[in-house]
Amino acid sequence: MELTLKEIAVAVAGCVVGDEAAAVRDVAPIEEATEGDITFISDRRHLKLLKSTGATAVILRESDSPPANGAIKNLILVKDPLLAFVRVMDIFRPQPPVVPGIHPKAEVSPKAAIGTDASIQAFAVVEEGAVIGDRTTLYPGVYIGRGARVGDDTVLHSGVRVREGCQIGSRVIIHCNSVVGSDGFGYARAGSRYEKIPQRGIVRIEDDVEVGACVTIDRATIGSTVIGRGTKIDNLVQIAHNVKVGTDSVIVAQAGIAGSTRIGNRVQVAGQAGIAGHIEIGDDSSLGAKAGATNDIPPRSVYSGFPAIPHKEWLRASVVYGKLPELKKKLEELEKRLSKLEKPQE
Amino acid sequence: MELTLKEIAVAVAGCVVGDEAAAVRDVAPIEEATEGDITFISDRRHLKLLKSTGATAVILRESDSPPANGAIKNLILVKDPLLAFVRVMDIFRPQPPVVPGIHPKAEVSPKAAIGTDASIQAFAVVEEGAVIGDRTTLYPGVYIGRGARVGDDTVLHSGVRVREGCQIGSRVIIHCNSVVGSDGFGYARAGSRYEKIPQRGIVRIEDDVEVGACVTIDRATIGSTVIGRGTKIDNLVQIAHNVKVGTDSVIVAQAGIAGSTRIGNRVQVAGQAGIAGHIEIGDDSSLGAKAGATNDIPPRSVYSGFPAIPHKEWLRASVVYGKLPELKKKLEELEKRLSKLEKPQE
Amino acid sequence: MELTLKEIAVAVAGCVVGDEAAAVRDVAPIEEATEGDITFISDRRHLKLLKSTGATAVILRESDSPPANGAIKNLILVKDPLLAFVRVMDIFRPQPPVVPGIHPKAEVSPKAAIGTDASIQAFAVVEEGAVIGDRTTLYPGVYIGRGARVGDDTVLHSGVRVREGCQIGSRVIIHCNSVVGSDGFGYARAGSRYEKIPQRGIVRIEDDVEVGACVTIDRATIGSTVIGRGTKIDNLVQIAHNVKVGTDSVIVAQAGIAGSTRIGNRVQVAGQAGIAGHIEIGDDSSLGAKAGATNDIPPRSVYSGFPAIPHKEWLRASVVYGKLPELKKKLEELEKRLSKLEKPQE
Repeated sequence: MELTLKEIAVAVAGCVVGDEAAAVRDVAPIEEATEGDITFISDRRHLKLLKSTGATAVILRESDSPPANGAIKNLILVKDPLLAFVRVMDIFRPQPPVVPGIHPKAEVSPKAAIGTDASIQAFAVVEEGAVIGDRTTLYPGVYIGRGARVGDDTVLHSGVRVREGCQIGSRVIIHCNSVVGSDGFGYARAGSRYEKIPQRGIVRIEDDVEVGACVTIDRATIGSTVIGRGTKIDNLVQIAHNVKVGTDSVIVAQAGIAGSTRIGNRVQVAGQAGIAGHIEIGDDSSLGAKAGATNDIPPRSVYSGFPAIPHKEWLRASVVYGKLPELKKKLEELEKRLSKLEKPQE
Repeated sequence: MELTLKEIAVAVAGCVVGDEAAAVRDVAPIEEATEGDITFISDRRHLKLLKSTGATAVILRESDSPPANGAIKNLILVKDPLLAFVRVMDIFRPQPPVVPGIHPKAEVSPKAAIGTDASIQAFAVVEEGAVIGDRTTLYPGVYIGRGARVGDDTVLHSGVRVREGCQIGSRVIIHCNSVVGSDGFGYARAGSRYEKIPQRGIVRIEDDVEVGACVTIDRATIGSTVIGRGTKIDNLVQIAHNVKVGTDSVIVAQAGIAGSTRIGNRVQVAGQAGIAGHIEIGDDSSLGAKAGATNDIPPRSVYSGFPAIPHKEWLRASVVYGKLPELKKKLEELEKRLSKLEKPQE
Repeated sequence: MELTLKEIAVAVAGCVVGDEAAAVRDVAPIEEATEGDITFISDRRHLKLLKSTGATAVILRESDSPPANGAIKNLILVKDPLLAFVRVMDIFRPQPPVVPGIHPKAEVSPKAAIGTDASIQAFAVVEEGAVIGDRTTLYPGVYIGRGARVGDDTVLHSGVRVREGCQIGSRVIIHCNSVVGSDGFGYARAGSRYEKIPQRGIVRIEDDVEVGACVTIDRATIGSTVIGRGTKIDNLVQIAHNVKVGTDSVIVAQAGIAGSTRIGNRVQVAGQAGIAGHIEIGDDSSLGAKAGATNDIPPRSVYSGFPAIPHKEWLRASVVYGKLPELKKKLEELEKRLSKLEKPQE
């Protein structure tokens, strides 16, 4: 496919500075772009790359006044370069189409309900009593347990496992090999042995959630583990039983949340962070990378470190950390000098 | 299903305080329970919820003397509320039954041995020479490699992979998408390149072990990686090659154990902890969340932090951590004051 | 199979000290070896085990002068005991043979290209436009998306998912349930909600790479996420979108690398380490276990801690950490003593 800059400008509601008739055929990252590519700059700090890029055109923010336009011939000015570029990607690299229908090599219970234009692909399994929404896609090897429900326009990538009774909303995306509804980690001590506490609750994933690859979300003991509307979860995240995550929160890769904890709305949990069980993380708060929250975190606050403390305190402390040996030495030295001063006065 | 409190009291060997004829139809968490639900309180700190819960009945510990019985009408007093509640869950929410037999869409080698009443479900694969025990369930998409052995009454959830030659005991549960017997991470340097050291040992998982979802347990180079009887492993845990874990130990989510390390009996490893290779963690010891053990840990001890130190020392130190900038400032101030004192004496 | 030590010495280019006619039938770890086993010692510190092992023969480094040869009768002296032992393992425990051909229960698109002697096993899926190289093995349940390419002599273990368009080189090994090409974690804020940024790049894995189990490697937004030739990745590692890893690097279990970061050649990233996005880790550098790199790391350097600092500084500081309460107390004491000294001079 080939489009002129004029045609692209129309698609993204922008205006061309340069050659409106110039043609582009693909998208590329600004460092790798060559003749025929269109790219973008969203972050002002990258404006310097305008000189060196080989792209035919660059999408820029209107307010980033076009600088002395050296190597680059053509710009498209828009309000939000990232969103404009997303639209251009959809033009040049459309998602592969999905074929609706039940593949002859899938295994769908006659007692399951499959929505209109759903795509149930090879080696997917849908058990008795399960409900799959309209236009929902189960890629090869997906497993939907007995009585589980999946909404409309949802995409479950290859190898996703949804255990019995769990509920997944509409427009949800779950990436390959993630697990929804595995048993919570609950045991009662019986002497030195452990007796399993049955986990008979479910997981409820609300609309517009996205879940990364190899994520594990455990079912509640009773009741529900909940992932609220619009929340985004990265790869390899652990969500324990009975956790409730609010709406529009973000949980970055390899973070873990222990049992029964409540995460508010619009919370950000950075990569490899851990959150203890039975605590509450307030709305609009953030937990830093590798942090470990052991107590409640108030709304609108930023915490880091383990145990987590306010981020600014942690930042200041972490700068001193490397100087600990020096501090210790100085302290010992001061003590000597002090002892020397004290002596004559005895 | 509907049961009277009298019937439930008989099932859990408890006694009713209140209306013996009251009927319940389901279990629920105490905060979410409504008319017709039965719930429980195991932790004294939750006794205050007795007032606000909408449950029809609450299972309580005998020794938690029934307080002024406000909103709640009915109690069932027992010795252990959690175990009693587990029994009630089994009544109201029984496990879905498993259909025995080999599904026509499974792929079982004619040279494999399948036990009586085993359930080999759709798209499961059992390779040549493998042995599957009586009443064992392989959910859809499970893979059992050549010559692997699985005991009786074991449950392998959808997507579990057991590589060739590995041995899994009886009454074991492994959750979705976990991997048993992947190659250990072993290489020999050959200049700046790495040459793979073949990993030809196995994994041996003993009886009554439970393994979470997306767990990886690597096969030994030679010999065996061992998970001892009754040990419980949470989601996303990494067990490297040649590790030996003792009996009745607990390893919480996202913890990792490096190669050839020995974990004793009744050890507790908390979430996101890491344990270096070739060390020994003594019986009955605990390692805190996010801790990193770099040396042996003696039996019956509690360690935290990275590098791990005795938990109490770590707790005290972590309180001071946030005050490091203050300490540094005070030290500099003291030095000035000291220099001032020293001057006249020169 | 049974071989004499003479025969083994020929196979590993070593020489026998002891009974050349002695027969061995298997390999074993030195602590577990019994009559009929051959084992090895690579690390001088294990030479003491020579006395206690029950092995019939031990492979030793030539330069480790055979000590007073007590319980052990037979040695094979070689230049590199580990590489010699690897060769002996290949003799006694050969890899199970793989049957070439497309299994009748696999699902291969007629528009895919399958190489000579490739093995496409039960329930594997190869989508339209995909290319599978010669002698490459797809174990049961592997998924190869539309237009993906896999080179020659590559092994994808059971449950591996390769999404559309991704490229995997030759002689690559990917362990069970790993995911190549899941969407990168990218969103644009739209008020308090997140709008997904389509991820339309690919993952490119070069020749001779090995990837552990349950690893996630996200596709680039545009362009490629790259794993360079010969790099080895352990289990449960997260590689975010647009990351570039160089050649012959090593990334140990549960480490995570955030988006757009560049890892050089021959870099070592230890277990549970985290690397922030958009930074650069120089060639031949190392990052310690549990470390968190938040800024560039220069070539040939060793960093640890979070935020990461030079390893030696971190080591010294971490020794002081446990003594923080003591330091604080001493500081307060010094202040008192100083105040006492200051008083008379007021």
